[in-house]
Amino acid sequence: MINLSILGSTGSIGKNACWVANNFPEKFSVKALTASTSIKALADQIAAFKPEMAVVRDREQAQKLSALVGNKTCRIDYGPDGYAKAASLPGVDTVISATVGAAGLVPTLAAVDAGKTVALANKEALVMAGGLVMERARLSGARILPIDSEHSAIFQCLAGHNRDELSRIWLTASGGPFLNTPVEDFASITPEMALAHPNWDMGAKISIDSATMMNKGLEVIEAKWLFDLKNEQIAVLVHPQSIVHSMVEYLDGSVIAQMGRPDMRCAIAYAMSFPKRLALPVPPLDFYRTAPLTFMPPDTGKFPCLALAFDALERAQTCPAVLNAANEAAVEAFLNKKIAFLQIPHIVSLALDAHRPGSGRNLADILDADAWARKFAAKTVTK
Amino acid sequence: MINLSILGSTGSIGKNACWVANNFPEKFSVKALTASTSIKALADQIAAFKPEMAVVRDREQAQKLSALVGNKTCRIDYGPDGYAKAASLPGVDTVISATVGAAGLVPTLAAVDAGKTVALANKEALVMAGGLVMERARLSGARILPIDSEHSAIFQCLAGHNRDELSRIWLTASGGPFLNTPVEDFASITPEMALAHPNWDMGAKISIDSATMMNKGLEVIEAKWLFDLKNEQIAVLVHPQSIVHSMVEYLDGSVIAQMGRPDMRCAIAYAMSFPKRLALPVPPLDFYRTAPLTFMPPDTGKFPCLALAFDALERAQTCPAVLNAANEAAVEAFLNKKIAFLQIPHIVSLALDAHRPGSGRNLADILDADAWARKFAAKTVTK
Repeated sequence: MINLSILGSTGSIGKNACWVANNFPEKFSVKALTASTSIKALADQIAAFKPEMAVVRDREQAQKLSALVGNKTCRIDYGPDGYAKAASLPGVDTVISATVGAAGLVPTLAAVDAGKTVALANKEALVMAGGLVMERARLSGARILPIDSEHSAIFQCLAGHNRDELSRIWLTASGGPFLNTPVEDFASITPEMALAHPNWDMGAKISIDSATMMNKGLEVIEAKWLFDLKNEQIAVLVHPQSIVHSMVEYLDGSVIAQMGRPDMRCAIAYAMSFPKRLALPVPPLDFYRTAPLTFMPPDTGKFPCLALAFDALERAQTCPAVLNAANEAAVEAFLNKKIAFLQIPHIVSLALDAHRPGSGRNLADILDADAWARKFAAKTVTK
Repeated sequence: MINLSILGSTGSIGKNACWVANNFPEKFSVKALTASTSIKALADQIAAFKPEMAVVRDREQAQKLSALVGNKTCRIDYGPDGYAKAASLPGVDTVISATVGAAGLVPTLAAVDAGKTVALANKEALVMAGGLVMERARLSGARILPIDSEHSAIFQCLAGHNRDELSRIWLTASGGPFLNTPVEDFASITPEMALAHPNWDMGAKISIDSATMMNKGLEVIEAKWLFDLKNEQIAVLVHPQSIVHSMVEYLDGSVIAQMGRPDMRCAIAYAMSFPKRLALPVPPLDFYRTAPLTFMPPDTGKFPCLALAFDALERAQTCPAVLNAANEAAVEAFLNKKIAFLQIPHIVSLALDAHRPGSGRNLADILDADAWARKFAAKTVTK
């Protein structure tokens, strides 16, 4: 039996993790659930899983939850301390870190410091503080397993092969909804247009990141830390069918690829049950009927966010944290129709240029850079 | 340093194995070389590698070789006993079994019984006597590593994953030179047409097998034994680009694929240097420029040899040996223009139907079936 703590259980990854836990009750026991403000959904999950504790954003949300589920079912907590408790709950084996955005960093670190197995969907933890997170995982013995389908693929393609024989990874990208949109139409892209993704069903923030390809940029940074890669060992490959989830190339020219349906439950279940696989009720790929698999280089002229992410990786220090925070702020402004689509990379680029980087070796440094970038982006949005 | 014995060193696989050994002199030392009648080529290899022994088909060939290389360079031997000695030479770590056809079975068994690492290109050993070879490998502790690119791919896709979670393998096939030829033109296919293969540079027998897709059928049988599969766990997939060399599907729907250039040196080098990879001077795949990867089911109406191989696998016992021997005889007759292309599957099918199978549990049984099938095929050709 694997005891789970699911951070961000009402989001898109969290719900799917709950689906897996629910479909394999003999394998998983849910001990903690956390959400921000989706109280009704959380109450339903509490009724289904009867966890030891549930955590929400603040006292007000905690009271709402309490009113729905009562106090007998489980302990209700709130705020950063509550999230950290859920992330480090004694008896929990695996923490699913699926909080969206920068808010996931601190609870992820709590899980890492507690030496848990961390099934990581919150890519911001590694984007903002990859060096710190991996160093603390080494100290505590925490194991970090990727939940992103691309990183899960890389992880599966590294298994059984010699790490020192890796030449590079090929991180595949669907290209998002605007892969074939002429660049001159990019100025008029609306949030509604960007939220309709062809292959994956995701939350709003991630959908916009997919549309700008910043999502892939964040994944590049995440991959660097997860797999201890040099920047030049990471190549991005546009693959519109989303069948090849990523690949690893070895020094003899052999390439190991992981493929599957574009169904996020597969990678989530893999991280939850590793080193075993679960017999998911997901139909296998039918290669007799699959469309031709095509590949092309990413167009960083159309998708400057991807180049900005590589740029932030080169600048290192607190620059990836600034990239991430400025992007979060810009995406929110875009979703609220305060800025146009093309202003997202523009704001991120301005932030990177204006930032005076700190070392990024401690959490305070990183959170300072994050706060600075948000303020900077907000100011730029207002102008 | 890995000490090698290369059986069939003047054939297409053998020459490439010599190329690898020659390019990595600090890794490999060639202790034995064997050929049938390509004496001049063997003499050149002896000059290059200075092996302890060299073996040829018969006394006459041995004398020819002796005249070319003298008696001081290396011990010269001949015939089945000589081949068996080269296959079990003390001090040899890895035996590359690259003899073409049924003649490879006995020396392969000698290498297996001697507990060597056997880098196996001679698929007939497993097609004819898979149960026997694998059983004797278990007894002696011999390790069998595949050299066929498809089986090398499967081997690489199994590494690091749980064998009991395998659902099936996808064995890819280029489809050969007649993939897109209308079935009504098959009657007029000549040896010259069949010898021109689009992706791989191979010997004549294998080229014809590729044209009939019997090659893939033999690989299906080989895969069954190498990887201990049930017949229904083996699926064949036509993939004309020959980039995906084969795949393994696991019970969660995850598919691990191995890709590479269609260059047989990669799989040969992998088997020779396993568990290390060699930095081959082979350019890596360029996914930014690669053609779309397409997949389709094999057409067993056009390529009945593939269905016959599955049929022989179901019949079991000595039937795969009969399939193989009847096919060898028919292919030879086709190359000698004694029969038409479409008669190859016809003769194999007649042989399978006429055969009274033995258990296939001992070598005598298998060699009897082999001899019977050759005689049967020869009779049918003459008619």
